[in-house]
Amino acid sequence: MIGVIGAASAGPVALREAQKAGALIAEAGAVLVCGGLGGVMKAACKGAKSAGGITIGILPGANASAANEYVDFVILTAMNHARNVIITNTAEAFIAIDGSYGTLSEIAFALKYGKPVAGINTHEVKGVIKVKDAKTAVKTVMALIKK
Amino acid sequence: MIGVIGAASAGPVALREAQKAGALIAEAGAVLVCGGLGGVMKAACKGAKSAGGITIGILPGANASAANEYVDFVILTAMNHARNVIITNTAEAFIAIDGSYGTLSEIAFALKYGKPVAGINTHEVKGVIKVKDAKTAVKTVMALIKK
Amino acid sequence: MIGVIGAASAGPVALREAQKAGALIAEAGAVLVCGGLGGVMKAACKGAKSAGGITIGILPGANASAANEYVDFVILTAMNHARNVIITNTAEAFIAIDGSYGTLSEIAFALKYGKPVAGINTHEVKGVIKVKDAKTAVKTVMALIKK
Amino acid sequence: MIGVIGAASAGPVALREAQKAGALIAEAGAVLVCGGLGGVMKAACKGAKSAGGITIGILPGANASAANEYVDFVILTAMNHARNVIITNTAEAFIAIDGSYGTLSEIAFALKYGKPVAGINTHEVKGVIKVKDAKTAVKTVMALIKK
Repeated sequence: MIGVIGAASAGPVALREAQKAGALIAEAGAVLVCGGLGGVMKAACKGAKSAGGITIGILPGANASAANEYVDFVILTAMNHARNVIITNTAEAFIAIDGSYGTLSEIAFALKYGKPVAGINTHEVKGVIKVKDAKTAVKTVMALIKK
Repeated sequence: MIGVIGAASAGPVALREAQKAGALIAEAGAVLVCGGLGGVMKAACKGAKSAGGITIGILPGANASAANEYVDFVILTAMNHARNVIITNTAEAFIAIDGSYGTLSEIAFALKYGKPVAGINTHEVKGVIKVKDAKTAVKTVMALIKK
Repeated sequence: MIGVIGAASAGPVALREAQKAGALIAEAGAVLVCGGLGGVMKAACKGAKSAGGITIGILPGANASAANEYVDFVILTAMNHARNVIITNTAEAFIAIDGSYGTLSEIAFALKYGKPVAGINTHEVKGVIKVKDAKTAVKTVMALIKK
Repeated sequence: MIGVIGAASAGPVALREAQKAGALIAEAGAVLVCGGLGGVMKAACKGAKSAGGITIGILPGANASAANEYVDFVILTAMNHARNVIITNTAEAFIAIDGSYGTLSEIAFALKYGKPVAGINTHEVKGVIKVKDAKTAVKTVMALIKK
């Protein structure tokens, strides 16, 4: 499972890279895990579904209808941001795209758990592997988790 | 999604009914959600897979290898028993089989959320629909969530 | 720390016993832990404060103003009912008064953790020590945790 | 309530500033909230107690004996790092000292919740008010929460 993390509202470049990342994750045979809402999460799910992949959304609330329409399996935590801990425990590697403080918390947890994080135009945190686009991001994390 | 809840160690009757419940849930076209560990959870997952179904295990820990081998998608919460809250938020109805205090907590949350719970030889709690076997249990909860 | 668990809306008998329990917990030199809201929780906190005790409220939400006015220390979980897990991990023994499914989940967790639960007119669960009033309840749990 | 966040193992300068911060928080009449373990958390609690203050430790585990000896009230979450969410919901402002990825996750949540964070030699995150020592940190956050 590969996680894509990023904000619920994002600009066109971030959304395009998120969609590409989702498609490439699916093509690589991995399952996409994300927060299941809009913005980067929705774009990534859309990309994964367009490539025939499987998507899991781990939501902050208790209402399945809050999930974007490209989520196959909706996990309802009703725990608000504590769901960020679950996302980072569940996936083996992460692609962080843009994002604000919620994404930063996920980057922090992922790195704490010693998992690879490839970052596209996201927070500058020691340990994040800075990449220029979705293609490099997926290639980078897939290579690292195969080790 | 239908949840099967019950203990990690259970007798042969409970395991048999759990496996049947899993198979019937799969045949009804529903996804099986459970705690992902052994006993009733493992039997239910085994049943679901034998019938070509899909299984989700929401684990208490952070280690995917703790999941039984019939779990398709492992959600790692690292939250111990707080994961019971997530299971009960995620599925739409529940089949409780045997079980001890952990199962009782899940029954309590499911009923609190107003979700149907069919119980096979489990805790006597007002609101649980007492049924004699897996067949009746799956039929009962499927009918209730279709309403 | 002693936990008092019970519903946010309760009848006069339950509230009276909760208030007495709170006062007796304080007189015994223990700290009162509860869910911090109204009903049984508020009555228990009121009782504890009337006897010069200390009260901790572990809230489901993120808003301190939801705590009743007798809570000294407000812990904000923003995790909804997962906070029930925290209450039952934090206190060493529990007095359950009346209560519905939320209280039942707390009874289940407390018993799962092997902690004493004295129950006044609450759920009939194997392991709960059935007592007639607050005085017996506090005496019972204090004796058990001193062992 | 003021939170002090930082690593369980820290160098002498961080520990000294944490202890000073704890003492100044107590002198300002605020309650100290922290993760309850060692390093920066222990030093802050020690400082607060030396100045007659009150300390609350919100622990990752279920074992009260893991708390440092200067914690007055031990909250046991048994939720591992999800307790970072509770710490940041509970306190009104934060002083971050040194720290690694766990501290970074707390900084992220605190800023997400719009709460002031003063940082002493910690992660460079937009929104953190960089200060040189404990004295300035406490003065800064106390002024901000009084507004």
